[in-house]
Amino acid sequence: MKSQDPRIDGLAINTIRVLAMESIQKANSGHPGMPMGCAPIAYYLYAKAMKHNPDNPGWINRDRFVLSAGHGSMLLYSILHLAGYDLSMDELKQFRQLDSKTPGHPEYGHTAGVETTTGPLGQGFANAVGMAIAQQFLAAKFNKEKFPIIDNYIYGICSDGDLMEGISHEAASLAGHLGLGKIIFFYDNNGISIDGKTKLTFSEDIKKRFEAYNWHTETVMDVNDLTQIESALSKAQAESRPSLIITTTNIGYGSPNKQDTSSAHGSPLGDDEIKLTKEKLGWEYAEPFYVPAEVREYFASVKKELVSKNEEWNTLFVGYKDKYPAEAKELMEFLGGKVSESQLASVPFFAADSKGIATRQASGKVINAVADNIRNLVGGSADLYASNNTKINSSAPFSKEDYSGRNIYYGIREHAMAAICNGMAVYGGVIPFCSTFLVFADYMKPSIRLAALMKLRVIYVLTHDSIGVGEDGPTHQPVEHIASLRIIPNTIVLRPCDANETAEAWKVALETKGSPVVIALTRQSLPVLDRGEFASASELRNGAYTLIQYGEKSDVVIIASGSEVHPALTAAKNLYEKGIGVRVVSMPSMELFERQSDEYKESVIPSAGCLKVSVEAGVTFGWQKYTGAGGINIGIDAFGASAPEKTLMKKYGFTAENITESVLKKLNKN
Amino acid sequence: MKSQDPRIDGLAINTIRVLAMESIQKANSGHPGMPMGCAPIAYYLYAKAMKHNPDNPGWINRDRFVLSAGHGSMLLYSILHLAGYDLSMDELKQFRQLDSKTPGHPEYGHTAGVETTTGPLGQGFANAVGMAIAQQFLAAKFNKEKFPIIDNYIYGICSDGDLMEGISHEAASLAGHLGLGKIIFFYDNNGISIDGKTKLTFSEDIKKRFEAYNWHTETVMDVNDLTQIESALSKAQAESRPSLIITTTNIGYGSPNKQDTSSAHGSPLGDDEIKLTKEKLGWEYAEPFYVPAEVREYFASVKKELVSKNEEWNTLFVGYKDKYPAEAKELMEFLGGKVSESQLASVPFFAADSKGIATRQASGKVINAVADNIRNLVGGSADLYASNNTKINSSAPFSKEDYSGRNIYYGIREHAMAAICNGMAVYGGVIPFCSTFLVFADYMKPSIRLAALMKLRVIYVLTHDSIGVGEDGPTHQPVEHIASLRIIPNTIVLRPCDANETAEAWKVALETKGSPVVIALTRQSLPVLDRGEFASASELRNGAYTLIQYGEKSDVVIIASGSEVHPALTAAKNLYEKGIGVRVVSMPSMELFERQSDEYKESVIPSAGCLKVSVEAGVTFGWQKYTGAGGINIGIDAFGASAPEKTLMKKYGFTAENITESVLKKLNKN
Repeated sequence: MKSQDPRIDGLAINTIRVLAMESIQKANSGHPGMPMGCAPIAYYLYAKAMKHNPDNPGWINRDRFVLSAGHGSMLLYSILHLAGYDLSMDELKQFRQLDSKTPGHPEYGHTAGVETTTGPLGQGFANAVGMAIAQQFLAAKFNKEKFPIIDNYIYGICSDGDLMEGISHEAASLAGHLGLGKIIFFYDNNGISIDGKTKLTFSEDIKKRFEAYNWHTETVMDVNDLTQIESALSKAQAESRPSLIITTTNIGYGSPNKQDTSSAHGSPLGDDEIKLTKEKLGWEYAEPFYVPAEVREYFASVKKELVSKNEEWNTLFVGYKDKYPAEAKELMEFLGGKVSESQLASVPFFAADSKGIATRQASGKVINAVADNIRNLVGGSADLYASNNTKINSSAPFSKEDYSGRNIYYGIREHAMAAICNGMAVYGGVIPFCSTFLVFADYMKPSIRLAALMKLRVIYVLTHDSIGVGEDGPTHQPVEHIASLRIIPNTIVLRPCDANETAEAWKVALETKGSPVVIALTRQSLPVLDRGEFASASELRNGAYTLIQYGEKSDVVIIASGSEVHPALTAAKNLYEKGIGVRVVSMPSMELFERQSDEYKESVIPSAGCLKVSVEAGVTFGWQKYTGAGGINIGIDAFGASAPEKTLMKKYGFTAENITESVLKKLNKN
Repeated sequence: MKSQDPRIDGLAINTIRVLAMESIQKANSGHPGMPMGCAPIAYYLYAKAMKHNPDNPGWINRDRFVLSAGHGSMLLYSILHLAGYDLSMDELKQFRQLDSKTPGHPEYGHTAGVETTTGPLGQGFANAVGMAIAQQFLAAKFNKEKFPIIDNYIYGICSDGDLMEGISHEAASLAGHLGLGKIIFFYDNNGISIDGKTKLTFSEDIKKRFEAYNWHTETVMDVNDLTQIESALSKAQAESRPSLIITTTNIGYGSPNKQDTSSAHGSPLGDDEIKLTKEKLGWEYAEPFYVPAEVREYFASVKKELVSKNEEWNTLFVGYKDKYPAEAKELMEFLGGKVSESQLASVPFFAADSKGIATRQASGKVINAVADNIRNLVGGSADLYASNNTKINSSAPFSKEDYSGRNIYYGIREHAMAAICNGMAVYGGVIPFCSTFLVFADYMKPSIRLAALMKLRVIYVLTHDSIGVGEDGPTHQPVEHIASLRIIPNTIVLRPCDANETAEAWKVALETKGSPVVIALTRQSLPVLDRGEFASASELRNGAYTLIQYGEKSDVVIIASGSEVHPALTAAKNLYEKGIGVRVVSMPSMELFERQSDEYKESVIPSAGCLKVSVEAGVTFGWQKYTGAGGINIGIDAFGASAPEKTLMKKYGFTAENITESVLKKLNKN
């Protein structure tokens, strides 16, 4: 791979530039500037530096490449095409068209060779930190002397935008702290942002900043000089700290009228400018979307060598299997990603208990009950371990000294935490979960959304899930948050009503593969329901179920979630004593309920013939779907307040008395 | 104020510590560690360094103090009480109780002397940057030779948590870039976080990091040595760069068993430990909540001096009014915060135009039409000026060279942008607005929520408001975002359907004082409706209104917002041609609609007797409230895709054809 023919190198680099320009022009949409400036980096990585196999993009020990500046997607598509991935020239010609493999921003799971979905700035950079964490965890656990089976780098390119976003600070600070030396990022220092020169708004000293984070830094003054890239890379590879290679580039390189201007960033260059650019680059080929034969040949030879590297690893792994059969089996299970029924057999059942426990505490017991069976469950907390109850007691902190630890101390870095979990999930082999207060889901939202878009299994344990937080007051009391997570497509929100629903919620979360799952838990104690009297908690997986029915006929159906199920149950008893037939439905998950048959849904929540009441200590928005316009929605459409929990629950009407009275008032009225 | 009697200083500092311990113990909830560690800083600032007037907490030229580590609220309450603000001892005794002035975290607008609501970490730090921007803007505009009427500092205390949060990076980088030398923050470097020692997760070099941001740094090795504080402060005050004073403190200072441990952070010390701590501090007084007479006397003398400083300024301002009457009048108007009808008279009316313009373009015209009348409207964009159409063309960028500029180049720092707007709003005198793509509202959410909680007038111009974004694909296409903003209490979301609704949206936004307002705008062109044929756009302020009625009776009511109003109108025509009576309701704002009378609501959307259809290119969650369970909800409950806009609108059913067919199908079924 190191065969340096400068003519072919130059031709290959220009091929990337031309393919990018042309695809973007054909789509009449896209970002040519970044691919043209960074073409040498992508070329060098894929052709000379990286260990990867275009025929086997799922190889666990491949080097990863993260295009954090996802708008430069044509850089990635061009190099993936040239390197021999399953991405045809026809796909490049369909850039940004419906159902093509070349969407506007790279999408994980959609295009072979795309390691993570990027576009929202800073996310890819933080994902890379998660990849490196997963890698170090697996390496620490499985590598043996002479068998470095997990031994790959995480490369990437980030832009000024990535580094302006706060998430880059959080992720870089943590990566430096953890000494994640496998991370090597190029910073595309092109001096241009959309609004003009970056110096309009960005004058920090990047090198010094990253040194402050305990990163190694390198400088490449001329990106078109591959020897500079090679030298910087080899130093970075030898480092035990993560590396940032600050690389001076030219946005829109080669464009006589647009290079080094923001007009090269986000619009096609135009046919005339493409023509001039080709002249300037010395591009001799008239045919559009053309790849010179020498370039094709060179990449073919590179691919051959790469495939044989993968084969060498396969051989290594055969030897490993031989010598360490148990470890090999476990690694294969980790990579398979399935959680079996037997692994979940240790999930505890909680005996009925009117005093009860907080669902966050029940969750902590579940985590620790399954942790020894699900040995790739890796958790973390944003400096709230004791409050979130998410520590795996049998494991150490994940640290520079012990990468096999399964407790990640994220610090107060919620956003990076969520993005790091995404990176761990796409790396493979681990099941990440993380935790903080529900109200701080806001800080994580951009990354939760990407988990949903990427169809990742990431579990969020979000405690202190209502005004039940109490004295900390409105800044710490989630109100709109449950709803704000429910509305993210492909996201499952579970708000269990007691310890046993919490146990079932964890089972669902661990079994779910294609969606992130939120488990929202209380700070305050809740009774553990007597499942002899009430329906089984295993019905949680239907999203909603009849917990109890008082009387033959349901005059009233009370639908509640989480902590509000308990006052709903008392209210139901009160109403039944007054001769009213009442059903109480526990609805821990709207999303799971929506997946059920119409028959089931009707059997739980009849569409007509009863008064329907929702009770949830959150905004009422969305509940009308289940109660109808004539129903009652007991919720909190305002901010909370600072006071003891019971005071607040009373003030905002989450009491059996208020539910009972509201129903009676409505029934008398009708 | 500088009268240094070390005995009284020490006694006053210990008074803060004791009041904090005792209030927290009485509440049986709170965070004693930080107030005990940082008491000398708060004392020094309020008693010796700051220019403020406890009797006049609204004085525009007061120094601001921001407790970014809001959990240390008892530090602030204690010093406000001692300094003579309207915060009685009884209130301290009611710490964290319902309706007290001493909620768990400090709340702006609730307690005199609290400058901003803090608690969610990093927010206060970024608010301070906004305060400094507002200050510099007003100073640049109004200060005259010999009349430095706006000349105050922004002081604050931040914690390791504040500095771990990404928003601190964004805000600090921008503050350094803009040279906001009036900012002086103490970093409470106590080495302890909730999970244990901060070094578990936080080993960056803070000094170097802030130097990289172009900040001045100072170090205070012993916070209890006031001469060190004095020396660091005087150097920081003389600096033209913002300053960070890295201050070694002891969490829970004085507590024999809890000092320097995380157990001092978030729980009451306990009666026994309080007793031991008092002994250790040499606190001689048996009475709880006791303030020694010498301390009372000293603060009384300080207050006298402070009041006279305010009076000196009043005299200065009388002179200013005399010499610069027009400027004085304008400043008073700015501080009044009212936008008058005459200021809005220049809002343009857009002539009917079937080709139309994008609402983001219409918004740009409105901004520029009113900018000369509303001269304290200060805008900004997160590196998307040309896309957001939010530049004030008659003004310069806000920069170190020209603080009178009204265009803030935030860079790609959405979170800080939103928090900075909060800071500008609480400073007073300016009306901040900011802009980015709607999908990136996610990055700003924690700060938008605080704007709503603080009842601030901040305007968010969020463009590219649906899958109409087109080729950029799902990472850039908002789907759940309109709903996620609607559900924040006290937030007004406006999604205008054409240029004239956009103009009306701006009027509402500028007239609204106690709520943040989101204006969601299209990337794509929309027809400008003929308001002769359709109802007046001024009805936008009712939230929803009948745009047009086809036929006597409404068999069908189609409720749409934004770009979807147009296919709804075509569908209505189609249906009317088939003999169906149809009403089209434009619903730019659910929140404003909810404020109307029941009669009005019924007159626009009848509760019965018609098929109700919602059409909005966002999640359907929440629309059932208006359509009922038997209605039709046309929306997108999935992520979008990368393709040209028209292709996507068709794919996801936002066409007249699909609306027409959906209605016909439903009607035939019934």
